[in-house]
Amino acid sequence: MSSSPPRDPENDHTPEILEKRRRFAGKELPHIAGRPCPPEEARGSVEGMIGYAQVPLGIAAPLVLRGDFEGTYTVPFATTEGTMIASYQRGLRVTADAGGISVHVLRDGLGNWPTLAFASVGEALAAARWVEENKAELVSTAEATTRTGRVTSLEWELLGRRLVLYLEMHTGDAHGINMLTRATDAVIARIPGKGQALVHGKDVEKRATTHRWRGKWVVAEAVIPAALLAERLRTTAAEMAELWATYQLGFARLGTQNHAIQVANGLSAMYIATGQDVAYVAESVTATLSLEDRAGDLYASLDMPNLHAAVVGGGSQKGTARECQALIGAKSARELACVFAGTLLAGDVNLAASFLGGGFVASHERLGRNRPPAGQ
Amino acid sequence: MSSSPPRDPENDHTPEILEKRRRFAGKELPHIAGRPCPPEEARGSVEGMIGYAQVPLGIAAPLVLRGDFEGTYTVPFATTEGTMIASYQRGLRVTADAGGISVHVLRDGLGNWPTLAFASVGEALAAARWVEENKAELVSTAEATTRTGRVTSLEWELLGRRLVLYLEMHTGDAHGINMLTRATDAVIARIPGKGQALVHGKDVEKRATTHRWRGKWVVAEAVIPAALLAERLRTTAAEMAELWATYQLGFARLGTQNHAIQVANGLSAMYIATGQDVAYVAESVTATLSLEDRAGDLYASLDMPNLHAAVVGGGSQKGTARECQALIGAKSARELACVFAGTLLAGDVNLAASFLGGGFVASHERLGRNRPPAGQ
Amino acid sequence: MSSSPPRDPENDHTPEILEKRRRFAGKELPHIAGRPCPPEEARGSVEGMIGYAQVPLGIAAPLVLRGDFEGTYTVPFATTEGTMIASYQRGLRVTADAGGISVHVLRDGLGNWPTLAFASVGEALAAARWVEENKAELVSTAEATTRTGRVTSLEWELLGRRLVLYLEMHTGDAHGINMLTRATDAVIARIPGKGQALVHGKDVEKRATTHRWRGKWVVAEAVIPAALLAERLRTTAAEMAELWATYQLGFARLGTQNHAIQVANGLSAMYIATGQDVAYVAESVTATLSLEDRAGDLYASLDMPNLHAAVVGGGSQKGTARECQALIGAKSARELACVFAGTLLAGDVNLAASFLGGGFVASHERLGRNRPPAGQ
Amino acid sequence: MSSSPPRDPENDHTPEILEKRRRFAGKELPHIAGRPCPPEEARGSVEGMIGYAQVPLGIAAPLVLRGDFEGTYTVPFATTEGTMIASYQRGLRVTADAGGISVHVLRDGLGNWPTLAFASVGEALAAARWVEENKAELVSTAEATTRTGRVTSLEWELLGRRLVLYLEMHTGDAHGINMLTRATDAVIARIPGKGQALVHGKDVEKRATTHRWRGKWVVAEAVIPAALLAERLRTTAAEMAELWATYQLGFARLGTQNHAIQVANGLSAMYIATGQDVAYVAESVTATLSLEDRAGDLYASLDMPNLHAAVVGGGSQKGTARECQALIGAKSARELACVFAGTLLAGDVNLAASFLGGGFVASHERLGRNRPPAGQ
Repeated sequence: MSSSPPRDPENDHTPEILEKRRRFAGKELPHIAGRPCPPEEARGSVEGMIGYAQVPLGIAAPLVLRGDFEGTYTVPFATTEGTMIASYQRGLRVTADAGGISVHVLRDGLGNWPTLAFASVGEALAAARWVEENKAELVSTAEATTRTGRVTSLEWELLGRRLVLYLEMHTGDAHGINMLTRATDAVIARIPGKGQALVHGKDVEKRATTHRWRGKWVVAEAVIPAALLAERLRTTAAEMAELWATYQLGFARLGTQNHAIQVANGLSAMYIATGQDVAYVAESVTATLSLEDRAGDLYASLDMPNLHAAVVGGGSQKGTARECQALIGAKSARELACVFAGTLLAGDVNLAASFLGGGFVASHERLGRNRPPAGQ
Repeated sequence: MSSSPPRDPENDHTPEILEKRRRFAGKELPHIAGRPCPPEEARGSVEGMIGYAQVPLGIAAPLVLRGDFEGTYTVPFATTEGTMIASYQRGLRVTADAGGISVHVLRDGLGNWPTLAFASVGEALAAARWVEENKAELVSTAEATTRTGRVTSLEWELLGRRLVLYLEMHTGDAHGINMLTRATDAVIARIPGKGQALVHGKDVEKRATTHRWRGKWVVAEAVIPAALLAERLRTTAAEMAELWATYQLGFARLGTQNHAIQVANGLSAMYIATGQDVAYVAESVTATLSLEDRAGDLYASLDMPNLHAAVVGGGSQKGTARECQALIGAKSARELACVFAGTLLAGDVNLAASFLGGGFVASHERLGRNRPPAGQ
Repeated sequence: MSSSPPRDPENDHTPEILEKRRRFAGKELPHIAGRPCPPEEARGSVEGMIGYAQVPLGIAAPLVLRGDFEGTYTVPFATTEGTMIASYQRGLRVTADAGGISVHVLRDGLGNWPTLAFASVGEALAAARWVEENKAELVSTAEATTRTGRVTSLEWELLGRRLVLYLEMHTGDAHGINMLTRATDAVIARIPGKGQALVHGKDVEKRATTHRWRGKWVVAEAVIPAALLAERLRTTAAEMAELWATYQLGFARLGTQNHAIQVANGLSAMYIATGQDVAYVAESVTATLSLEDRAGDLYASLDMPNLHAAVVGGGSQKGTARECQALIGAKSARELACVFAGTLLAGDVNLAASFLGGGFVASHERLGRNRPPAGQ
Repeated sequence: MSSSPPRDPENDHTPEILEKRRRFAGKELPHIAGRPCPPEEARGSVEGMIGYAQVPLGIAAPLVLRGDFEGTYTVPFATTEGTMIASYQRGLRVTADAGGISVHVLRDGLGNWPTLAFASVGEALAAARWVEENKAELVSTAEATTRTGRVTSLEWELLGRRLVLYLEMHTGDAHGINMLTRATDAVIARIPGKGQALVHGKDVEKRATTHRWRGKWVVAEAVIPAALLAERLRTTAAEMAELWATYQLGFARLGTQNHAIQVANGLSAMYIATGQDVAYVAESVTATLSLEDRAGDLYASLDMPNLHAAVVGGGSQKGTARECQALIGAKSARELACVFAGTLLAGDVNLAASFLGGGFVASHERLGRNRPPAGQ
């Protein structure tokens, strides 16, 4: 059975226990251990540089995946929110003991919606027809701007007299937004008769929208037997399902794209750790959790249709991010997306259970940074 | 006139130019300069700790504020997204030269919606009446759990047979979510006859919702004269307004809470730098930008009704975050929120202009990390 | 036990069975029976008049209400959608046999958001302060425009440099929009220094929005015992709850305000019958259904926070609408709103069950207008 | 030049002026003139029938269309909302004098999303693969249930462990929902291994959603010269654009699918008149208006991506609806959809202008039903 990271019940923040956990992770982690990253390495990532921000970094394990990727993973989180990693740790432990989390990547690609303004609907439609007739050539134009990208879709719609193209590419293991922007620019430059052209006209970039699908579409699911639920999470599947019904009724009033519990917590921490563009948190937290009572066992699933993940490019292979990526060991952006989604499912299952067990406030009091002095 | 940070056109990532910029910032910044933070300092912020993640840190200046807070600020960003700080730098420069950015805090408080399940609407209404009749006592109960918090609202609504309370507190210069959660727990414990109680029943926490107001509600605005627009941003107010009309038509289709351009970029970078809970990015990016042509001058405003900011508590006074907070010098959470909103307005004005000038892709090519080799 | 309307299994559309059902309704219904309404009666309701549209009108009964209003009602529907009234009829029958539907009015009032544009946020805030200081006088101004209306709220918020007032009135048994518009106009005229003023600036009128509360907020609920479910609806509470879970997952992707099943069907038909302004259907269908398994019994509730209803004014007391209002016998707008919500709950329970029993398509085939010839 | 309907300035509701307007419409309109419809004709449209509701019916003209359909139309409205038809009449007059309204149908079809529950994501994916492999056969299955329908799309997505199909058909000049439901049922019956199957799993039916496209996608546009704006609507394009900017900022806060002004008014009245299923108003009001200042002229467009319209089937060819359909004279559902969208654009232009001219309240006072007695 896979083991959890070592802990020191006396003092869990000594140099010794940190070193023990780094050895548990099984990788060389010199920058994480304290060696300053050189400023030169940040060239292209930052302007007006004055140094490095240091963000506390912890791990949770084991994440046991099945389905599209099978394996056992250790997951890094950069955060200042006390109790959060502990919550993921408990979720990973119980899902691992239940046989792991099954993950599937349903779709994979990156799109945007450049917009071109014309004088009338008729002129916009004429341009749309031109796009239809020259689609093959426009695809070639897009693909000529990149060595690795491949166009997977080129469509259009109208916003009144504005023509909105939809260009979607398979961007491999990099995030791909820069690749996509270059390709988009080249495509736009070919279209005759346009007025003003706007790269992100119907702009889904870094915001939660009802468009929903973008990046990786990952679904994670797990079944936790009744006995484990009772013993570890001190709850039942019926209680979990009833709690989830209440959440859903609340979400129905809130007009949110995020119908899960704490995915923003884990995702922002894993994004900082692994050198993702953290601004994509706003978009990637699009999610639908489901907690169901299956004859006493808990069936839990998390649908993330808008999940961004990269293992090369951007900040992902520099400094401590490179070390965190090695620690996880995902060989592709899809695998990393599955690590993210699986971990997030585990954390939501645990937090839901802790609400039921009354454990939420108590855990914050015990572990949290903000223990109030008497009387506060 | 306030100056911008020094740059070295030959090589802007040498230790010397970094040191020069740290002196420009005018504060002691030893951890930012490379001194490792001690693990003990992260106690209460992280579990399973293995060290610190290092995130490239840069500055932009001057942010010139008027309105609720008057002053000149230097703004830190922790990011790996090349060209982003440069975009904010240009926006800050042009808004400063135009006389600065006016900011107002419209509301300030933190609320949540604990939910209690009853057997019927009638029982839920009876509990609601009990809450009405015992409101003063419940407020005292809530305020007894904290030394500094003050209840600003205690209301209710129904979700069918579920009673949803709304508890709102003024939480001072800390973020306040832990304070609020403790107070909520105490209030819930007093209500007779409830079944299951859920702290975050109608859960707005860390997600963009249509509830909209939570945290600080800040509005920032600036007027940029036609001459500055033409000279610095190579555009006109009419072009900016027309571009914004296209954005708005796109947003109308997207069901998003974020009707601005790149606020997720700047906000996530400022959050990491200043030790905010980064997961709140998902919620704080709720925004409405407006770009208007005022007889040739540009009137720009940014409404942020859901902005979280803390200058004490959490990670805000530890390690490099403490240094970044000192570098900004905001004396209250409200002032910090105004620094955030003013900076974000400047960045959106600049990015909108760069779309029009065709400068967007070009800037990414020149500064960005991802310059493709020939043929890519 | 209350009875259902008579039917003629041979031919249910003869003059005789229609007359029998009109007698069942117990009122004089001459215009419904065919007497043309005089054109003069439509003065004030229509311009460019050429006559009257005739819309088929049917009834379902008994609606048995408990809670805020106790009684047994016959409900009229004007529709051309075959099978729809039959669906409500079955729902009313089974809920009546289960002991009826409990209804509560949670709030009652009508508001709008007039908007005033100023040159800057500062000027808008100054106007907001003026409103705060002169609130009592503005309320008097509003109430002086009406004999019966009473101001229940006068608040404000900002949209950047635009001041949005919120004026809410208790409008009695009329719909009240015209009363509210006059009062709003008078209030706006008093505010000094404004530029352009817009009556419906943040316009919720006749559209589904996330503002949600407007008009009457009604909650209806019913418990249907397991035995009735099995016998009449050929289903179980567990099946109904599972079906509802699927609906909720779908709604989570759709960004809709209407989380119920067929409320638009019943509501538009009851609105036409009773002389409501039918355009309010778009707004009033805001709803949240809940279907829960309570130890084998079905607990069903329908929350309608945005329900418009009038028993006087507009078209409600003219021609066939007056006859339909008499047929229902609601003595107040609140009572009529409860009749609407109770009926809609019954119809949704029945339709959900018919989906499970496979009865949906079959019923359309048997009763519906569109029975296809062989081979279609 | 096309003329407007005759009016009698003394008394516009006498039998004589009604008859004059019916002759203006140029069709035999006996039922509209008062002849009762026979009950037998309502067979298949209504159950529990007791007679007919009579709704005041008026006309406005001329609607002048260009683009996909060229012609001059008279438009019928069934309503009890005083002043509403007058508003459309003014809008039609001014747009006709400006050269008419250009309309284009961008897409045409009807889809739904039947949902099938499986035990796991893996099983749902296996079913999805089966659908992919048997797509041609499933299309044949669907098309075998109808003589006229044609499948235009058969796709799938997952909701966790639930498989959602998307079946879209071209349904000709009927609305098509019954045809589509039958085809859906036949397709579902073919899929092996499913558990519960739900026809409307991701249910867009009769609700406004962010899915947006369904039915007919129509865009209408018009340019109104500055001189006409000033003379007829007492306003300028700059004022109209500024008003629209305020609306858009309000909509950004409201999470609505309806970004137009009064489309629910005109559409519900035209739907009742022409025998559409009125419940579709809730869905069809999905709209985006745009009012732009084009060098002093007004450019106005209305995008309606979710517009339902039928000229055969349902209630469209019975009684007074048949007469209204003849009065319009649309030869296809697409043409009728263009009549709807063009009329709605005209009404929104006029209402926007009347807000600016202060004419809104005044017109309600003069024409409306609710003229208050002194002192009310």
